[in-house]
Amino acid sequence: MSKLSLDGFFSYCKQIAEHIQLGERMASLSGQGTPKLTSSVGNLYYDSILPYREDAQPQTREFLARVVDVLLDFIHQVNDRNEKILEFRMPEEMSKMCDFQLHDEPLPLKQLLEDCKLALKYQVKTGHPHFFNQLSCGLDIISLAGEWLTAAANTNMFTYEIAPVFILMENVVLEKMRNMIGWRTGDSILAPGGSISNLYAFLAARHHKFPQYKEKGLSSIPGHLVMFTSDQCHYSVKSCASVCGLGTDYCICVPSDERGRMIPTELERLVKYHKDRGNVPFFVNATSGTTVLGAFDPLEEIADICQKYDMWMHVDAAWGGGLLFSKKYRHPRLTGVERADSVTWNPHKLMGTLLQCSTVHFKYEGILLNCNAMSAEYLFMTDKIYDPKYDTGDKVIQCGRHNDIFKLWLQWRGKGTSGFERHMDRLMELAEYQVRRIKEQPDKFHLILEPEMVNVSFWYLPKQLRGLPHDAHKEIKLGKVCAKLKGKMMQSGTLMVGYQPDDRRPNFFRSIISSAAVTEKDVDFMLSEMDRLGQDIVVD
Amino acid sequence: MSKLSLDGFFSYCKQIAEHIQLGERMASLSGQGTPKLTSSVGNLYYDSILPYREDAQPQTREFLARVVDVLLDFIHQVNDRNEKILEFRMPEEMSKMCDFQLHDEPLPLKQLLEDCKLALKYQVKTGHPHFFNQLSCGLDIISLAGEWLTAAANTNMFTYEIAPVFILMENVVLEKMRNMIGWRTGDSILAPGGSISNLYAFLAARHHKFPQYKEKGLSSIPGHLVMFTSDQCHYSVKSCASVCGLGTDYCICVPSDERGRMIPTELERLVKYHKDRGNVPFFVNATSGTTVLGAFDPLEEIADICQKYDMWMHVDAAWGGGLLFSKKYRHPRLTGVERADSVTWNPHKLMGTLLQCSTVHFKYEGILLNCNAMSAEYLFMTDKIYDPKYDTGDKVIQCGRHNDIFKLWLQWRGKGTSGFERHMDRLMELAEYQVRRIKEQPDKFHLILEPEMVNVSFWYLPKQLRGLPHDAHKEIKLGKVCAKLKGKMMQSGTLMVGYQPDDRRPNFFRSIISSAAVTEKDVDFMLSEMDRLGQDIVVD
Repeated sequence: MSKLSLDGFFSYCKQIAEHIQLGERMASLSGQGTPKLTSSVGNLYYDSILPYREDAQPQTREFLARVVDVLLDFIHQVNDRNEKILEFRMPEEMSKMCDFQLHDEPLPLKQLLEDCKLALKYQVKTGHPHFFNQLSCGLDIISLAGEWLTAAANTNMFTYEIAPVFILMENVVLEKMRNMIGWRTGDSILAPGGSISNLYAFLAARHHKFPQYKEKGLSSIPGHLVMFTSDQCHYSVKSCASVCGLGTDYCICVPSDERGRMIPTELERLVKYHKDRGNVPFFVNATSGTTVLGAFDPLEEIADICQKYDMWMHVDAAWGGGLLFSKKYRHPRLTGVERADSVTWNPHKLMGTLLQCSTVHFKYEGILLNCNAMSAEYLFMTDKIYDPKYDTGDKVIQCGRHNDIFKLWLQWRGKGTSGFERHMDRLMELAEYQVRRIKEQPDKFHLILEPEMVNVSFWYLPKQLRGLPHDAHKEIKLGKVCAKLKGKMMQSGTLMVGYQPDDRRPNFFRSIISSAAVTEKDVDFMLSEMDRLGQDIVVD
Repeated sequence: MSKLSLDGFFSYCKQIAEHIQLGERMASLSGQGTPKLTSSVGNLYYDSILPYREDAQPQTREFLARVVDVLLDFIHQVNDRNEKILEFRMPEEMSKMCDFQLHDEPLPLKQLLEDCKLALKYQVKTGHPHFFNQLSCGLDIISLAGEWLTAAANTNMFTYEIAPVFILMENVVLEKMRNMIGWRTGDSILAPGGSISNLYAFLAARHHKFPQYKEKGLSSIPGHLVMFTSDQCHYSVKSCASVCGLGTDYCICVPSDERGRMIPTELERLVKYHKDRGNVPFFVNATSGTTVLGAFDPLEEIADICQKYDMWMHVDAAWGGGLLFSKKYRHPRLTGVERADSVTWNPHKLMGTLLQCSTVHFKYEGILLNCNAMSAEYLFMTDKIYDPKYDTGDKVIQCGRHNDIFKLWLQWRGKGTSGFERHMDRLMELAEYQVRRIKEQPDKFHLILEPEMVNVSFWYLPKQLRGLPHDAHKEIKLGKVCAKLKGKMMQSGTLMVGYQPDDRRPNFFRSIISSAAVTEKDVDFMLSEMDRLGQDIVVD
């Protein structure tokens, strides 16, 4: 060992001290260490950070880093199976417990950090492996990173001028999706949710068939427009009829079979019926992946009918579209989708992209501009230095449009197309596993039908109802069990599975596996936890 | 100085080394230091982080911390006046320079970090103090923090069940906003942008006046519905007429005065004209803060006419609504807003909330549910354990609805109502400063009108056009200067100011001050930079 000079040693000590300090500060910033931030950023107010003070970069970084701390802890909890999914409180109780009020005076940054913690404490962890409640589950980390960047970039998608990179990414992603549908060309847009995507399809169809409509309105059509959809469709289809002035009476529900699939012969019968009465059938919505049962309407047969009667065929694949990635599951479910005129497909559902990310695709190039352009001169001038065809604002019925592309694009880069395919196959495999496990326990569970997708429909049987013959009378009782058991799930906070009635049966459970977090163990937990919470339920 | 034992010294060295390592690691995590991350997280792929591996918490934190690094650097640049606003590239060039492609195979996390950097490098810095281009400018840090949390919470706003905290926050914020409009009661919703907010108002008006419309459609009305709006209104108003089946021919443009304000006598004349022809005037849109000129329609006089002819009065205050905070500027601009039936107000504009955040308010309790409910049984069951009045999904024409409230709520907590008032007064003060500075340089700038808001409309005069009399011929030349000068701004990347023509004049510049980052110095920079870039422009 060499000898240390006194000066050298002091200088060394100083370095040590600085590094220790740095280590502590930074450990706190990254949320990994116990040593908590010693600085006083928490006592500052909004006007001590950017952009209010030019020299406020350190405080700004520190404040945001502390917020990120809170978020990283939350993400950890979301993925921790020992954590509860929710801390349920009744609305009135929650309002009393939490200070949600807006004050005249600013609150300090430390209070905002507490606000963030509080919000997350009582928020439902939709990314938890035991959350089977909604079509959108899971918390994809890469998509999350994309959404954080989107927020920092804080731009609007209407012109290339202010969103150049994101506009080009949209073009790449949407073209890829159209190709997967089976189209070489066409038009697409991202919309704020599947309902608005379906609305875009409706508007494009109406414009395509009756271009005078845009200016002259409904009165320019001889006869009343009529649209068709199955009785299992998403309610937004009916909503189009109301919004667009048809009236919901002219949105005709086509009966479905016992698996929830539209019956093509019924469709044709109803089309004929309305033609005979002088109405104008012009739009058919086929669903690929219904909300409740996960059913797929027979696209080929529907396409034949649309062709025969010159109607626009829209496929609402908001839910089922993700299966286009899977060689194994795409057929026969989505066979014929390329014959559609338009397709809705929500990456925020089966693909796990963060909310919101919904797309709608059209077979016809330029149709969105033709249909929706209002030609606002102040945005879409033609004397720009770049080709204004890159501006998307005049294609849409929104003006401001949120950047929903980056989180999807980044996720796709990270997973690769093959990663999405593996994801789809895995989800389906898990749903098949769940079906098997349900069938193995016929005393406790009753499978309602063999699903085509990751929606599994079933009843849970508490002790009171086991061993009794299955009839309509028992179904009513099983329906009553659902609300009670769901209440127990919410109160215990350990599990969330949705339930609903449909037109054939009272309440039943519909679980969804669309999160990459779920494993066979979690499926087992779902069933055993339902049994733990529900076995002693007694219904009238 | 005490003597060191050899063991003690070694142990001390080990501590030093660890602290140095920690310091370096964490410095990198927080993006403040040069020492870069030594770990190999970058070589990992998506399936090495959560939720794909249970033990992946450290890698996940690290990946996200590195993304945050990139974002914090970007935020620093956004606020650095020495940084350019944009690195402009033509679309074709950008597509060649950047790899936007989606591949079959996954890319490693380090590539995703590079992707993030690249996206930000070519993205326009809309929060930069020299960005005067759009109604939405600025990057509010607290709102940004709110959006990051929103992404991590990744939920949907349709039910209290899955968004309890956020639903309650919506109630608090929207009630506060209604109170500021001047209503004690009512109904409100957040929508994806002002255009959809205006669509909600149109739908509510139609439903309120003609409730049979929802089911029976347009054919149930004797006579053709007609709506009115000024010729300066946002184009989304006209779009409602197209979307909803009226036809744009039945959206009547009311002439405005030279300041861009609707002329009430003209409105009344046109209403009478259409009534006389058997049409049904039912909806008037008044604009508070027009997009181009920032004009305020005279609300009291319009309200009188609406009352007289039993028409719904909507105020599109998407842009001007923020001035409701200001005791100094609220009147006379928004005097009479409380007489409206509905009001659109976008916090993502003047209030600086991150995109998107748009609200629409109604005087009538329960109107949204009455108007839009489709009663999807699978979501909005009435046998839930909490009062289903807290579920908002059936009030809206979307189904999935993004959480746009948290970023606004947190921002409001941070600024306080008084902070928003100071913000509004400051923005107006800066616009007044800009007007003064323009008037002080009549050789270089021509003020088009005294603005009512932060929109300043003016021409820039290159040397070629100075000292010549101002006439229509010169205006055409000044119009040509705009596109050329804007091109130079884009190429130099130092400044962005928008331009457009209107129906009275060719192209002119319209600058916007809506960012809290802007100071008097930045206003001076805007004008001097325009002169630097533009003085030698020559037009035909």
